[in-house]
Amino acid sequence: MTSRPLEHRPGRHTDTGVFVCFEGGEGGGKSTQSRLLREALAADGYEVLLTFEPGDTPVGAEMRRIVLSPETGHLDPRTEFLLYAADKAEHVASLVEPALARGEVVVMDRYVDSTLAYQGAGRALDAAELEDLARWATRDLRPHLTVVLDLEPSAGLGRFEGRDRIEGESLEFHQRVRQAFLDLAARDPEHYLVLDARAPIEEIATAISGRVAPLLAQAVRS
Amino acid sequence: MTSRPLEHRPGRHTDTGVFVCFEGGEGGGKSTQSRLLREALAADGYEVLLTFEPGDTPVGAEMRRIVLSPETGHLDPRTEFLLYAADKAEHVASLVEPALARGEVVVMDRYVDSTLAYQGAGRALDAAELEDLARWATRDLRPHLTVVLDLEPSAGLGRFEGRDRIEGESLEFHQRVRQAFLDLAARDPEHYLVLDARAPIEEIATAISGRVAPLLAQAVRS
Repeated sequence: MTSRPLEHRPGRHTDTGVFVCFEGGEGGGKSTQSRLLREALAADGYEVLLTFEPGDTPVGAEMRRIVLSPETGHLDPRTEFLLYAADKAEHVASLVEPALARGEVVVMDRYVDSTLAYQGAGRALDAAELEDLARWATRDLRPHLTVVLDLEPSAGLGRFEGRDRIEGESLEFHQRVRQAFLDLAARDPEHYLVLDARAPIEEIATAISGRVAPLLAQAVRS
Repeated sequence: MTSRPLEHRPGRHTDTGVFVCFEGGEGGGKSTQSRLLREALAADGYEVLLTFEPGDTPVGAEMRRIVLSPETGHLDPRTEFLLYAADKAEHVASLVEPALARGEVVVMDRYVDSTLAYQGAGRALDAAELEDLARWATRDLRPHLTVVLDLEPSAGLGRFEGRDRIEGESLEFHQRVRQAFLDLAARDPEHYLVLDARAPIEEIATAISGRVAPLLAQAVRS
């Protein structure tokens, strides 16, 4: 995945609010589990922001439209990466950091790891350089917990019916993506939870709640 | 302008084609001089691409529209910088590098120095980090010659009638921008030509042609 080994550097975690991200390939249930976590926390009275990357700000949505539109044609890999980085910068600065500062729980569907995994797996760009850029864009803000919903790519792609520029990639590409998520988790186990995405939905939700519970002291109830 | 001193690193110059950039503040005559240089070279039979940043690709134009549109409202400084970097990446990869590879002369109105000068002068971001990012976006491609049309900001702004987000900045901001261009030139005199923009147009054009002439051995005639 990289010409330089990816080394773990600690990054920045806020001391108010709780930041939980869901990562992994297609078809692993990220949106289902992030919704279930939001509902469970809201039912317990916590203020929760459910959000996603890329595209959950007005500017980010425009950038995503540019990247994914068939009219755009071929984009240089650096252009594409920088557009996703710009989306992240805006998302973190305008939405995520303010919510954490208010003591909310931010539940996010895809974050920096997805960028590193997908664009690093494309092999066109140096993964360590991509990480430097993505960390700069996000002012090195890290989740208190990243949940990786791990799935053999052939299973995940079978579940997924859409085909865009990402899903149209080869099985080998998706295997590199999967390995990238697992490598990121392995280098920082304190902040990661890797779960088998084929387990029953309720079982996965319970495992996630168990890891989130001790973090909630930093969060406010409404 | 920066919390770390800007050090000169050599960068990459192509060995086919000739890459000439015009830099400097508003009102210094960049577009006039770049047009005159294009006309003189074309009259001598050289293949010339006249281009500009930001916005001279379809994707770049969309990004520029996003950044400058009043509807966009406040953008995080990192978002704005990354959008300009994406514009540069696409411009260099899709337009500039191919023209240089064909042996053409590329005459460009603003390039990396403008990004460093304007966004560095805003003081919101570390100038050395900005340079790393802009160099990454452009694969460290450097002009064979950068012409800085230098002008006291109060003079240049008086000549310029438009008002957008950049021109609306303070005089002190534009003085920092001017100094940034001069600092960039001072650290690499072999590849820079600084001219007083108040000199007569023909005199400036002659000085530029004199510095461009020895570079033309790398360029093709049609």
